[in-house]
Amino acid sequence: MAPTDPIRDLLGLTLIPGVGPMTVRVLLEQFGSPGRVLDAPESRLKEVNGIGPKLAARIAAARREVDPDAELEDCRRGGVSVVPRGTDGYPPPLNDIPDPPSLLYLRGSYEPGDALAIALVGSRKCTPYGLRVAERLAASLARVGLTVVSGLARGVDAAAHRGALKAGGRTLAVLANGLSRIYPPEHDGLADEVAGAGALISEMPMRQGPLAGLFPQRNRLISGLCLGVVVVEATPRSGSLSTAHHAMEQNREVFAVPGPVDSLASQGCHRLIRDGARLVETVDDILEELGPLVREVRRGPEAPAVRHPAELTLSDLERSVLGRLDDRPTAVDALIAQTGMTAAQVLATLSVLEMRRLVRRLPGHQFVRA
Amino acid sequence: MAPTDPIRDLLGLTLIPGVGPMTVRVLLEQFGSPGRVLDAPESRLKEVNGIGPKLAARIAAARREVDPDAELEDCRRGGVSVVPRGTDGYPPPLNDIPDPPSLLYLRGSYEPGDALAIALVGSRKCTPYGLRVAERLAASLARVGLTVVSGLARGVDAAAHRGALKAGGRTLAVLANGLSRIYPPEHDGLADEVAGAGALISEMPMRQGPLAGLFPQRNRLISGLCLGVVVVEATPRSGSLSTAHHAMEQNREVFAVPGPVDSLASQGCHRLIRDGARLVETVDDILEELGPLVREVRRGPEAPAVRHPAELTLSDLERSVLGRLDDRPTAVDALIAQTGMTAAQVLATLSVLEMRRLVRRLPGHQFVRA
Repeated sequence: MAPTDPIRDLLGLTLIPGVGPMTVRVLLEQFGSPGRVLDAPESRLKEVNGIGPKLAARIAAARREVDPDAELEDCRRGGVSVVPRGTDGYPPPLNDIPDPPSLLYLRGSYEPGDALAIALVGSRKCTPYGLRVAERLAASLARVGLTVVSGLARGVDAAAHRGALKAGGRTLAVLANGLSRIYPPEHDGLADEVAGAGALISEMPMRQGPLAGLFPQRNRLISGLCLGVVVVEATPRSGSLSTAHHAMEQNREVFAVPGPVDSLASQGCHRLIRDGARLVETVDDILEELGPLVREVRRGPEAPAVRHPAELTLSDLERSVLGRLDDRPTAVDALIAQTGMTAAQVLATLSVLEMRRLVRRLPGHQFVRA
Repeated sequence: MAPTDPIRDLLGLTLIPGVGPMTVRVLLEQFGSPGRVLDAPESRLKEVNGIGPKLAARIAAARREVDPDAELEDCRRGGVSVVPRGTDGYPPPLNDIPDPPSLLYLRGSYEPGDALAIALVGSRKCTPYGLRVAERLAASLARVGLTVVSGLARGVDAAAHRGALKAGGRTLAVLANGLSRIYPPEHDGLADEVAGAGALISEMPMRQGPLAGLFPQRNRLISGLCLGVVVVEATPRSGSLSTAHHAMEQNREVFAVPGPVDSLASQGCHRLIRDGARLVETVDDILEELGPLVREVRRGPEAPAVRHPAELTLSDLERSVLGRLDDRPTAVDALIAQTGMTAAQVLATLSVLEMRRLVRRLPGHQFVRA
């Protein structure tokens, strides 16, 4: 038996055909660790809820038949790290979805600030209008400091990554296939750029090809990584509608960009808007709709904690006043003394923060964070 | 004193500068008839709520200073009839609005079927997209049998009238100015066509010019005549947004057509959709949203009563089955016997009617109108 290593064992488990994130979770609950699952006798595996005799046999044979070392070698050569769930590098937002991957393959870097992410998705068969809007919106999101997430597909996805890159922002591409099999092939260069300004992410083995059946499962990760999903153009059967539905199930916001009513590529978006998605013209429509964050985000060791996406658009002055407020009431006079600003400046700034619903006014000229 | 004639006296009253529909209503409530208002002493007029001393003096002087006969002569020459509220030719939907005009000037004809009307309005400064959508949507509405109402303005309004005319349907134009002063002048020919396939309508004296202040007041009549208002393109300050707001106040449906997010002409529509207006791509989106009619409409002496706009799209077969149903439960067997259709045909037809929410299924294979 090879020396046990948690990542090696987890890989050994996830590389077994037919073992998805739900199965891994059930097995880990039963046996405690990937190594123990792989060492369990077939008879005990068969007793686990949802594990049929064939799958049990495959798991029991995995120590002999699955080669995690070859996979690790592929990762090493591809500059890909394997990030198990529960470790530091694992994206926190994925812990909130019903079926988080037990491990992620990641090329590039996932940073704490990437928790402030918006997905921009849409049809591969998009129009020049869709490309233009996707690129502009992605650039605006990036300029505000939001990470743009998409799927590296042709059309809207590629325009979204490019818009974020051009604006010097961060972007993540979640693939349905393995990271050594970039699809579509002509996006090889784009993939390199994304890895340099964010990350390529997949839950599939390195050499997994792009099968149609893998895309819906991938789409749950695009929405799961984000605060909200913006659909830019979607034909009535576009896969981006599945991303929108995952977003609803995961309690993420759904946004859609309208377009001409005689354009097939906008029909899916119009359907989403009729069904309650927020209509998006500009990045402000997105920021207005996003509520306070589930957990505060620090975009760097020195950076102030962000509790609400609307904070991203604040001026330095506004940020400095907001930074002095917390859950305990603070008097306006104290703020004037601390900031060295005039009373008029402080009051005007507080009005802006109040309007953006970032602070709340209390009796006696006191303020708290909203 | 000239011989009294109710229309002449009503004209004498409405022609007084400063006497609007609300004032007429208050005065008629106080004095009983237009003739009695005109004969009332100034001292009594001044006692009426909302009538100041200047207006009271003008009303008391009206028998001498206002010339209803000249106005009637203008009407005769222009082929315009004066339709007082409470008479047969008065459009029933206007009785439901808060401030119905006490009389309408009408060139052409208002028919009972015109109660099934939809307003199509939008910016004068519209794009080729707006013109195209307005004309197509108007044609579809007309083909279904709905009357298209608009304001004869340049841009979307004109396209709406033209679309209805090309489809051989009915259309009404409500003007903010008098009917002898067609505005804009280049729509003289269009006005003639509208009068031939519907009506030109105004509440203003024949020679009243197009003052900016009159348009909001006119807009309440466009929405008031209709089951719903569709805004096709609207810049953020477009007057068509005022029509949409009148529609909300009058309990009419509000619809808006989306467009490209980088088109200023669609921004007003996107705002309306965010505020709850129904997004419209096709005529079906309008028909789906309209509820049952407040009062049933007969589009001719022989035509069956229409209780729900969705009935307009029925096939002859569907209409014939629906025509045999009323509020009392009818058995499927009776329908089969009455129509001579096969059981399968009747059941399929009932399913369609049920899906369109026009009939309701009761226990024991019985049906009623919904």
